[in-house]
Amino acid sequence: MHSSGYDGRLGEHEIIELIRKRLDVLPGSFLPFGDDVSTVALDEERVAVLKTDMLVGKTDVPRGMSSWQAARKTVVMNVSDFAAKGVEPKAALVSLGLPRSLLHRDIEEIGRGLNSGAREYGAYVIGGDTGEASDLVIAVSLFGITERKRLMLRSGAKAGDIVAVTGFFGKSSAGLRLLLDGCAASEDLREVLISSVFMPQARLKEGLALADSLAVTSSIDSSDGLVWSLNELCRMSGVGFLISSVPIADEVKYFADFNGLDALELALYGGEEYELVITVKPKMWGEAEVAIERAGGSLLPIGKVVREKQIFLELDGKKQIVEPRGWEHFKSKA
Amino acid sequence: MHSSGYDGRLGEHEIIELIRKRLDVLPGSFLPFGDDVSTVALDEERVAVLKTDMLVGKTDVPRGMSSWQAARKTVVMNVSDFAAKGVEPKAALVSLGLPRSLLHRDIEEIGRGLNSGAREYGAYVIGGDTGEASDLVIAVSLFGITERKRLMLRSGAKAGDIVAVTGFFGKSSAGLRLLLDGCAASEDLREVLISSVFMPQARLKEGLALADSLAVTSSIDSSDGLVWSLNELCRMSGVGFLISSVPIADEVKYFADFNGLDALELALYGGEEYELVITVKPKMWGEAEVAIERAGGSLLPIGKVVREKQIFLELDGKKQIVEPRGWEHFKSKA
Repeated sequence: MHSSGYDGRLGEHEIIELIRKRLDVLPGSFLPFGDDVSTVALDEERVAVLKTDMLVGKTDVPRGMSSWQAARKTVVMNVSDFAAKGVEPKAALVSLGLPRSLLHRDIEEIGRGLNSGAREYGAYVIGGDTGEASDLVIAVSLFGITERKRLMLRSGAKAGDIVAVTGFFGKSSAGLRLLLDGCAASEDLREVLISSVFMPQARLKEGLALADSLAVTSSIDSSDGLVWSLNELCRMSGVGFLISSVPIADEVKYFADFNGLDALELALYGGEEYELVITVKPKMWGEAEVAIERAGGSLLPIGKVVREKQIFLELDGKKQIVEPRGWEHFKSKA
Repeated sequence: MHSSGYDGRLGEHEIIELIRKRLDVLPGSFLPFGDDVSTVALDEERVAVLKTDMLVGKTDVPRGMSSWQAARKTVVMNVSDFAAKGVEPKAALVSLGLPRSLLHRDIEEIGRGLNSGAREYGAYVIGGDTGEASDLVIAVSLFGITERKRLMLRSGAKAGDIVAVTGFFGKSSAGLRLLLDGCAASEDLREVLISSVFMPQARLKEGLALADSLAVTSSIDSSDGLVWSLNELCRMSGVGFLISSVPIADEVKYFADFNGLDALELALYGGEEYELVITVKPKMWGEAEVAIERAGGSLLPIGKVVREKQIFLELDGKKQIVEPRGWEHFKSKA
């Protein structure tokens, strides 16, 4: 989870970079280190797809979230990365660090939550390891198999492509404010916003349909926030984006109004959201849209790919540069 | 690491059992849950092999062990399970929980240690995740591919088979006593014993050679202690063992003499040791021995498989039943 910790010293991306530099590279890897998943060639056509993502109780489990939800969510976080690459998850391994204070019931709940997270998306938990730790630590590794040519990378966006997302933004961000910052909301609104934090859904059907459509040039999920994801696609594709619309969930607008917050900011910089952020060949927009709709989802265009390596936001006639930082305010162009 | 924690409440095996009961089973899994690795079928002949094992700083890293060694060892622990199944490791994923107190240099060391552990055995670290945690947590997942028929399971031992190991026992156990219990040893002895804790070696070449020989009926590593491993093979094969010789390292005999300890006990109940414990078809003993010797190792017979589901130890004409518990004294038969 990119959202957790280290602000005081090294950032998570700096840490990953420090480690990456010490690693020899598997010959024949065709996915750049730092994409959402890693691959190992199986034969000429197929690759094994692997991913690990971990949840730490102290930083990633807000008060009120059950052990069942935490375990399920850890699987969903991993599935979301598979969704963004268009890969069906097949099997999961789990390493559990368990504090002594956990009860028998918590451990059963963790087992059930892991199973639910996997089974909701067609995968199975096939093994694991456990040990004592001070924090609850749930590290899930996911495994799948796909055809190399079906994989949607972070690095294929081209000028003229359409930038699109699979849903509306800001709910998790608002939910976290409710849980952590003492913001207020009506009971109904509260339930929707908090449920988006406790019970996230991965856009797997959408991701698989998009991979089938062959219309997608780059793809990522939005687990670190919309701007962070846009920036990753830009950086790894060597392009820029002109964003002309930001789909903000209605619930987020109400919530922001009521609490004197900026709804746009909640939508742009929220994390823990599991929409897909993609670029689509303009001539194949129709195919992508139909594919997603058949899968029961919807595809919302939010802008287009440009040559200049910046993210521009043009709303209500005002054009701004969005700074490529996660979890921070964007700055307006002078 | 089966050695860690939970004695006060639920044991690690009870925890795994609690969780296992809540999991649906992947159709077509042919390895029982609880073997050293998990598998997913790739085609008629080949399976993907997956394994995760985790190290927690608080319980698994004795004082004096460097971050480099801890990271390397986590990979080696996983490789050892692949060795026991006769599978070549290809790629590793790493989830890191890092305490805030870790320095830039520690993180680089962890990166180098992960790389060393993988490269020593022909594998590569291909991805990972990191987050803040109270303890150092290193969870490694290992991936490989093998032919189904080559896999050496825990569950194939038959009465009459020869029980064998790939080396002498007790060094890690003695090394841990030196590090944790204030035992004493000469400088040279100390170096050997502690090095077996800090710089364990997985018997990968031996495991691959044994798989090639097709002489092995069951196999496990000894990471939880020799008796624990023998018991697992018995339990999962539905047999018993008559053990007539326990290979104790000379260094362990000196160490035990000097400290008034029982060398046999150190050898039987030590953990963190990465020898292979196998059963061999008696008619193919020669093939197994030659295979191991060509790989640069040695194969030591220690007993034979019997029908009665007990582990008997017959040394110096005295026959005892070894209780199937790890880390505990064995009890003599009245």
